Amino acid sequence: MKILLINGPNLNLLGIREKGIYGDLSFESYFPLLKARFPEITFEYFQSNVEGELINKLHEVGFSYDGVVMNAGAYTHTSVAIRDAIAGIKAPVVEVHLSNILTRESFRHESLIGPVCCGSIMGFGLDSYRLGVEALIGKVKPW
Amino acid sequence: MKILLINGPNLNLLGIREKGIYGDLSFESYFPLLKARFPEITFEYFQSNVEGELINKLHEVGFSYDGVVMNAGAYTHTSVAIRDAIAGIKAPVVEVHLSNILTRESFRHESLIGPVCCGSIMGFGLDSYRLGVEALIGKVKPW
Amino acid sequence: MKILLINGPNLNLLGIREKGIYGDLSFESYFPLLKARFPEITFEYFQSNVEGELINKLHEVGFSYDGVVMNAGAYTHTSVAIRDAIAGIKAPVVEVHLSNILTRESFRHESLIGPVCCGSIMGFGLDSYRLGVEALIGKVKPW
Amino acid sequence: MKILLINGPNLNLLGIREKGIYGDLSFESYFPLLKARFPEITFEYFQSNVEGELINKLHEVGFSYDGVVMNAGAYTHTSVAIRDAIAGIKAPVVEVHLSNILTRESFRHESLIGPVCCGSIMGFGLDSYRLGVEALIGKVKPW
Amino acid sequence: MKILLINGPNLNLLGIREKGIYGDLSFESYFPLLKARFPEITFEYFQSNVEGELINKLHEVGFSYDGVVMNAGAYTHTSVAIRDAIAGIKAPVVEVHLSNILTRESFRHESLIGPVCCGSIMGFGLDSYRLGVEALIGKVKPW
Amino acid sequence: MKILLINGPNLNLLGIREKGIYGDLSFESYFPLLKARFPEITFEYFQSNVEGELINKLHEVGFSYDGVVMNAGAYTHTSVAIRDAIAGIKAPVVEVHLSNILTRESFRHESLIGPVCCGSIMGFGLDSYRLGVEALIGKVKPW
Amino acid sequence: MKILLINGPNLNLLGIREKGIYGDLSFESYFPLLKARFPEITFEYFQSNVEGELINKLHEVGFSYDGVVMNAGAYTHTSVAIRDAIAGIKAPVVEVHLSNILTRESFRHESLIGPVCCGSIMGFGLDSYRLGVEALIGKVKPW
Amino acid sequence: MKILLINGPNLNLLGIREKGIYGDLSFESYFPLLKARFPEITFEYFQSNVEGELINKLHEVGFSYDGVVMNAGAYTHTSVAIRDAIAGIKAPVVEVHLSNILTRESFRHESLIGPVCCGSIMGFGLDSYRLGVEALIGKVKPW
Amino acid sequence: MKILLINGPNLNLLGIREKGIYGDLSFESYFPLLKARFPEITFEYFQSNVEGELINKLHEVGFSYDGVVMNAGAYTHTSVAIRDAIAGIKAPVVEVHLSNILTRESFRHESLIGPVCCGSIMGFGLDSYRLGVEALIGKVKPW
Amino acid sequence: MKILLINGPNLNLLGIREKGIYGDLSFESYFPLLKARFPEITFEYFQSNVEGELINKLHEVGFSYDGVVMNAGAYTHTSVAIRDAIAGIKAPVVEVHLSNILTRESFRHESLIGPVCCGSIMGFGLDSYRLGVEALIGKVKPW
Amino acid sequence: MKILLINGPNLNLLGIREKGIYGDLSFESYFPLLKARFPEITFEYFQSNVEGELINKLHEVGFSYDGVVMNAGAYTHTSVAIRDAIAGIKAPVVEVHLSNILTRESFRHESLIGPVCCGSIMGFGLDSYRLGVEALIGKVKPW
Amino acid sequence: MKILLINGPNLNLLGIREKGIYGDLSFESYFPLLKARFPEITFEYFQSNVEGELINKLHEVGFSYDGVVMNAGAYTHTSVAIRDAIAGIKAPVVEVHLSNILTRESFRHESLIGPVCCGSIMGFGLDSYRLGVEALIGKVKPW
Repeated sequence: MKILLINGPNLNLLGIREKGIYGDLSFESYFPLLKARFPEITFEYFQSNVEGELINKLHEVGFSYDGVVMNAGAYTHTSVAIRDAIAGIKAPVVEVHLSNILTRESFRHESLIGPVCCGSIMGFGLDSYRLGVEALIGKVKPW
Repeated sequence: MKILLINGPNLNLLGIREKGIYGDLSFESYFPLLKARFPEITFEYFQSNVEGELINKLHEVGFSYDGVVMNAGAYTHTSVAIRDAIAGIKAPVVEVHLSNILTRESFRHESLIGPVCCGSIMGFGLDSYRLGVEALIGKVKPW
Repeated sequence: MKILLINGPNLNLLGIREKGIYGDLSFESYFPLLKARFPEITFEYFQSNVEGELINKLHEVGFSYDGVVMNAGAYTHTSVAIRDAIAGIKAPVVEVHLSNILTRESFRHESLIGPVCCGSIMGFGLDSYRLGVEALIGKVKPW
Repeated sequence: MKILLINGPNLNLLGIREKGIYGDLSFESYFPLLKARFPEITFEYFQSNVEGELINKLHEVGFSYDGVVMNAGAYTHTSVAIRDAIAGIKAPVVEVHLSNILTRESFRHESLIGPVCCGSIMGFGLDSYRLGVEALIGKVKPW
Repeated sequence: MKILLINGPNLNLLGIREKGIYGDLSFESYFPLLKARFPEITFEYFQSNVEGELINKLHEVGFSYDGVVMNAGAYTHTSVAIRDAIAGIKAPVVEVHLSNILTRESFRHESLIGPVCCGSIMGFGLDSYRLGVEALIGKVKPW
Repeated sequence: MKILLINGPNLNLLGIREKGIYGDLSFESYFPLLKARFPEITFEYFQSNVEGELINKLHEVGFSYDGVVMNAGAYTHTSVAIRDAIAGIKAPVVEVHLSNILTRESFRHESLIGPVCCGSIMGFGLDSYRLGVEALIGKVKPW
Repeated sequence: MKILLINGPNLNLLGIREKGIYGDLSFESYFPLLKARFPEITFEYFQSNVEGELINKLHEVGFSYDGVVMNAGAYTHTSVAIRDAIAGIKAPVVEVHLSNILTRESFRHESLIGPVCCGSIMGFGLDSYRLGVEALIGKVKPW
Repeated sequence: MKILLINGPNLNLLGIREKGIYGDLSFESYFPLLKARFPEITFEYFQSNVEGELINKLHEVGFSYDGVVMNAGAYTHTSVAIRDAIAGIKAPVVEVHLSNILTRESFRHESLIGPVCCGSIMGFGLDSYRLGVEALIGKVKPW
Repeated sequence: MKILLINGPNLNLLGIREKGIYGDLSFESYFPLLKARFPEITFEYFQSNVEGELINKLHEVGFSYDGVVMNAGAYTHTSVAIRDAIAGIKAPVVEVHLSNILTRESFRHESLIGPVCCGSIMGFGLDSYRLGVEALIGKVKPW
Repeated sequence: MKILLINGPNLNLLGIREKGIYGDLSFESYFPLLKARFPEITFEYFQSNVEGELINKLHEVGFSYDGVVMNAGAYTHTSVAIRDAIAGIKAPVVEVHLSNILTRESFRHESLIGPVCCGSIMGFGLDSYRLGVEALIGKVKPW
Repeated sequence: MKILLINGPNLNLLGIREKGIYGDLSFESYFPLLKARFPEITFEYFQSNVEGELINKLHEVGFSYDGVVMNAGAYTHTSVAIRDAIAGIKAPVVEVHLSNILTRESFRHESLIGPVCCGSIMGFGLDSYRLGVEALIGKVKPW
Repeated sequence: MKILLINGPNLNLLGIREKGIYGDLSFESYFPLLKARFPEITFEYFQSNVEGELINKLHEVGFSYDGVVMNAGAYTHTSVAIRDAIAGIKAPVVEVHLSNILTRESFRHESLIGPVCCGSIMGFGLDSYRLGVEALIGKVKPW
């Protein structure tokens, strides 16, 4: 099973930026822990601050991978283009967020990509990524 | 670890009502499977169509249980009273939904209870309940 | 042919409350007149001020009766849960109102249950119930 | 008892246009059936696609007929002028619709003429006209 | 000096309809009084309930008359087409209303034709027409 | 003089829940102090988390008591049904709130029941109940 | 017959400010011309940039004069206090504007004072004041 | 191939009215040029200021012609009735506009008929009609 | 204990203006009655129609008095400046209104000053002032 | 004559993605057919998923080419930056869309770039590109 | 060079009121420091809590001074009258604010006077005044 | 002291594009003049049309420079991602604009980045950059 973990803008600052909201563990430190937990899965990780590069990556893996766990960051709320990319590929995409976006500024309450993802998980910090992987596994091996 | 699974209005019709959206497995059939998967956890299950009875239940367990997985059904979108009950108790509450509410009628897009829950999971059918339990475990045993 | 007449909150005050709008005949006085007019139909009557009890009743009769004539009163404008109950049962539901809700406060203009009822009738006082029954008959015996 | 049945724009296409929504019976075929059902009533029928001609007709009969059953079609949602005509005449007007307008496009949800009609009936196909006539009779012969 | 007085829908019912708002004098009875007051002016009067006929009339006189006093009735609030006709002709148009439209339903508060008229006068009953004529005279003979 | 004090959802948690907003005195501890202050008045106290039970209570006392002091809690903002119950009974109802609802979330700014109460008092903590009683006395013994 | 002409903020700059919109004649130069045209009327003129002073003036004359012609300038769109002053006095008030406010910025489209004035006149430059006086005369000497 | 060119209100003033926006060529002068360019097509031309007559024409040709090029003028933004007529007929309708409606008043930005047309073309002056004809040809002879 | 009673615009007309809403007792007649009821308190009374003078008064007493009872009249709904003055002083301010503002025009439903007052009381006529004083006493001598 | 055809995000998936909406022909297969139809024109083609690269391309050709046919894809609805690029260059830009955007999600109804394009064409599938080229030719060789 | 510094309501409390937002230096203490920095400029300073007095001052200096630096305080968000005064005078006006108004309550986000000022500066505390003066100098001595 | 000047999309066209709004001096010509004025400061200049590259640059300098002067161009109004980048870095950012954005299209009135900048300056043409530098100096050397 091949899964892409893909992070949007400013998530390269995780562990540096706004620690009160996002905690002080960087994604780079977290990633080996996650991989260790699911040894049967092949993971790829990609991060970019450029909207179009995120789209390029989705196109690249979207017809061959088994699923995508995506934290689109700020583009969650503004990018119709990423929405269209998700809708255009075959792999199911799980939307994840570190924080509970409903407790933040009102312009973060709406997710433009949510309606084309197979499901959404938010509010559990870095554990949201693990739950996203669990959810993709659950789609393959239903109860 | 003690967890309450609590379902709101019309979820007693699960497996009977609108199967295209919700599938044809009732919660009663699903519950033993879920318990089998987490033998170390003590589960209680409660369902009611009466808003105030859901509040009564949250008050009853909210100061002694370790967590709540709640699918408030239609009250998700209309009940400030349930929101206040969640905010008023000590146990963390995970919001779950069977379907992706963002793909349904616009009045279902807003969750009044979301901002006072510790996190939300939606779109994975009955598997959303399992992921809710996983999320509560993740809060107790962080990475 | 079995039909449920179901009244929502405050309709137990009919004939007592706001007579300028609703007239001074109670539903209890009116009900025998209605039954007399349709001797071939078996009627059941139910009223509750509790949203969840209305849902329970709809679930109870919704898979065995031939139709429901419902005046959901104030819950017409606020209850997604009753809407879901109507959508979840098999029996067709006709929405009725005593007054023309479009001439009242703006928050009464929208009916949340209207879109899942087979049709709506309003503005004819207690005669709206008779027309509701006529409409259910018309569905069974089309022109 | 004299009643005007009046149809607004595009209802001359009934039975031809959008049969999925409106059925395949034309009003011309339906009208004799309706008259046969109420032999004691004198009916007049009028249809026009011109807003002003509908107003002219309402003015013409509005001070001598006992009632009007009106399906204003698309003008329901846009015509303040027809609303004023209904408010200006003496005969009570019952608003009818073939479909449940609440299940269609949002601009069809609001009825500009509803607030000046004595009541509204919708969602019962051609049977809505019969129920409209029943409602006018009910106003004359109350319970 | 040649002036067209033009009335929109339902104003033929003046003196008959909603007397509480509009008074009980018909325009036909009022018109001779108005003409007597301005003997030096040639008046034409036109009324129609058909939006397009009002446009036809504006086109007909709009390049040869000295001015128009128009009470567009309900079309004031809905007709972009009449607005375009007024903007397209040369003669200045004064908008008049019998009642103060700001004290009525909110959908009557906005005038679509107001922005293309040279000015507006409302609230003075039939005297609004006289003031409209005065205003046109004032444009020709400024202070 | 007979007065009902009636509390809506979650107010049974007073003194336990969100003490920063509501203080740490429970209503049960406060009630004897209040009664002591107005020995000439007969008080009844009722609390429920169920919307319909609040309505039932209002119906029960609404035609025999001299007044009601009501803190409808979260139902203040969502319950048209309680509004209708208040409008339907004879006893005057004073709306009270512990906190200043205008300083909280925007969905708490609107009171659906306010317009049918004789007046509103908010922001004075538990003292709001005393002021509510004072207001009812003031209605009976005007200046 | 005694009439107050009252001008709101910045109208003391008439003839100086924004001549493209308001022309280059000051109100002081215009006032003698207006008085000469109505020799039978006693006029008083008042201007202030202070909202409260305009209210004071309305109170002062509002129970003894026969009418008021008011150009409230910018306060037209923001002053509920002037609205209340107009509603509180006995003398009828005619609202006038030099320009057609509907062709300007959207925040100038709404008149807060319009609904409590007996009528409104706008768009005729300084001639709007003359028409306002004509309208007050018309109220005293109806057709 | 038979095509109807149909123009809505005020387009009879083309070449006369608001030349800055619409140019100074009348449709009558332009029509022969257009016909000359597509000699293989039979054209019919119709213009009316009456909404209902446009509907009548659409009904008349809508089941026998191969396509319609329609400039509905102001009715584009207000006529649900014309929308329903277009949706009710079989012939494909191409919406055309002389000007770019997005650069004009905000109430012209929305096209009510657009969603039921097969496509829209705007902003190319009279050439929009030619492009509309090209588009209809393209539908018959796809690439 | 020193308390300022401060009234905003048009409240000098109390007893004269709109008696149906406000009663026929002037504040001047009421004030001695109020003082007699609280002999232990030193009262000052101030009224102005000028927004800035109300601010000046609040600044003047706001750092030395024990509390303020303010009826800001129309400025309640429009004055951010008075709001800032209340927020800037030390003395607690109780907002009072004679009428229930929620039953009046929609622009009166929002209070700009409410969120910075310690509490609000409305709907009890002149008795609202007494309740305001009671509330200030309650803040000093809590239960 | 030199024309740039420029496609925005996800249009590289044409023929692969959402074939129900966009058809199964890729732009690469279509482009030679288009060039063959206009042998006298020099075409350049560019596609990118990166908003800024589309802007770079517009800057590059915008002062030397004769026109641009642009399908901005999802950026149509979100990119003020592309709008500014179009407004800043000299070459006229024709906006094209494969589908009729008015029949899709509401956030696709508004085009941010439309107001600065010389015109728009939508709904004709790949033929929209040909019509865009025709429109540019029509601007050079007017009728 | 002559410059007016003008402060609106509550700015006389600077250094006393809400120090967390505005700091604890009064404008009176700051003014000499500012003057010392620009010895070549003649400054006048004016503050009032009365909207109309601010307008009077703008009129007084607006045709003779070289510029105005204005902090309109709360009137920034509510005063169309001050906006008109700024638009009506000749001197350029620079809008300044101590705090970043975008981080405060939403009703402070809109500046009614901004669009008629030559520019705006906000968020730099008292230094905003110095920058305002710099900006006026920059207008006279461009780069 | 090290300061980054950073320009967003289309600002590379300064001096070429829309000169009526932005003037005819390019930023490249202006930059040496600016540097000459502040010889004690080390400046870096960066411009990109790609949103993500602007974010990359902010990340690169945001933890080592003393401040940033940013004109985000069109991304000001649409980029939550740049907002998050500014909020995530340590260096204070001053927002600048050449034009007064409040006098342009309504979608340019809101700045998404303003609330996370330390302050904003707009409307002074290229001089806005100098004022931005002055503001950063003022933060380091307060009065």
